[in-house]
Amino acid sequence: MYTYKMTIAYEGTRYSGWQIQHNADSIQQKILDALKILLKSDQVVLIGSGRTDAGVHALKQVAHFRHPTTIDSSRLLVSLNGMLPYDIRIQSIELVASNFHAQYSAQGKEYHYHIHLDPVMNPFKRLHCWHVRDKLDRTLLSAAAQLFIGTHDFTSFSNQAHEGSASKDPIRTIYRLDICDEPGGIRLEFEGNGFLYKMVRNIVGTLVEIAREKRSIDEIPVIFAAMNRRLAGMAAPPQGLFLVHVNYPL
Amino acid sequence: MYTYKMTIAYEGTRYSGWQIQHNADSIQQKILDALKILLKSDQVVLIGSGRTDAGVHALKQVAHFRHPTTIDSSRLLVSLNGMLPYDIRIQSIELVASNFHAQYSAQGKEYHYHIHLDPVMNPFKRLHCWHVRDKLDRTLLSAAAQLFIGTHDFTSFSNQAHEGSASKDPIRTIYRLDICDEPGGIRLEFEGNGFLYKMVRNIVGTLVEIAREKRSIDEIPVIFAAMNRRLAGMAAPPQGLFLVHVNYPL
Repeated sequence: MYTYKMTIAYEGTRYSGWQIQHNADSIQQKILDALKILLKSDQVVLIGSGRTDAGVHALKQVAHFRHPTTIDSSRLLVSLNGMLPYDIRIQSIELVASNFHAQYSAQGKEYHYHIHLDPVMNPFKRLHCWHVRDKLDRTLLSAAAQLFIGTHDFTSFSNQAHEGSASKDPIRTIYRLDICDEPGGIRLEFEGNGFLYKMVRNIVGTLVEIAREKRSIDEIPVIFAAMNRRLAGMAAPPQGLFLVHVNYPL
Repeated sequence: MYTYKMTIAYEGTRYSGWQIQHNADSIQQKILDALKILLKSDQVVLIGSGRTDAGVHALKQVAHFRHPTTIDSSRLLVSLNGMLPYDIRIQSIELVASNFHAQYSAQGKEYHYHIHLDPVMNPFKRLHCWHVRDKLDRTLLSAAAQLFIGTHDFTSFSNQAHEGSASKDPIRTIYRLDICDEPGGIRLEFEGNGFLYKMVRNIVGTLVEIAREKRSIDEIPVIFAAMNRRLAGMAAPPQGLFLVHVNYPL
């Protein structure tokens, strides 16, 4: 079997998320349907590096599939993009080591969260950021962000993905959480060895409550220690979140 | 009567254009409907600096209306944005000299046209640029662009707006036509004292044909001289075009 790695950009607005679901349009399903037709095989399995939720976007999601024969991957790329809707674009397809696995080989991920701060929303950004009308205290925001960097049990900042789903190890390491200026707002850049379900959005929601002075920065260690999702802030809305990179060993 | 000047940003994708039309959703209609309700008046008239076509966007369209009493314009701004769809945003409303007229007082306009050149389209740009797959010769493009700068009769690069519409003076001056790099493509910046119907898109379409080497640069003076729209290239598609600024005397 030959293993092919794909990188994919998508605007998540119209989809129920990356993962295949019954009675809902997913990005994984759209790509898989096209792949089955083009490879003339019902056996294809497409595995992503992880899920993204409804409304969340990706600049470089990674997925893999295996196939018994070699493929003209540049032709497949053109054919796939010809079949897919314009809000999903395959950026590359390459033959990789046969043991490559988009999820299990991943060593880390980078997410960006965009917050728009102008009093009037930019209509071109409305589907790609969270519009926060209150003034944010940047000093508090930066100080609070520091408290998330490093290795922690992130139980309080993660939602249970599904009833009865296997409980994951909740220990994760955030290497970097930078707050960058961008026109009209800010961008929170997260780099870590992995992220639990809704972890980025829950952290952003909590950080914004602190920067709005609706919550004290002193609560963060308390929330971490409680290991209880109910103590953290509301999840930031999905449309501000972008999966921008997945790291694999060279 | 008091005159109020508005600046407006809109994503033109869902609309038939700026101008009110029967049986079609226009930006002017959406704003006017909200304005009539908020000002409790059926007499309001909203006049824009000019039309934009279906699918064309604006970062700073300008319009004006007159009202018999003074208005709390910052409250009106918030109320209007509360009523309008998110793809139309009023950015400012200000009291101006009573003889201000959004169309007749305008001294010039700036338009940007975005062309995406990556082989694979960026899904986040699909509604905001023209995807050109062929390689463009940048030297030819720049040389051809130079030939449009200055004062010309642009009849060959303009479409008749409507059967029987008043024929406008076809002499226009382009002060600046710059070709700027941007991530994944280029941006053509046009500044001029005014633009005829479809003039920017017809010029862009012709420039791209030349840069693709489908048409010789030597044809440009011939096309200008013929004063016949049929000789110029196809119009570039609407979604790449942005009205970015309207100039008024200080």
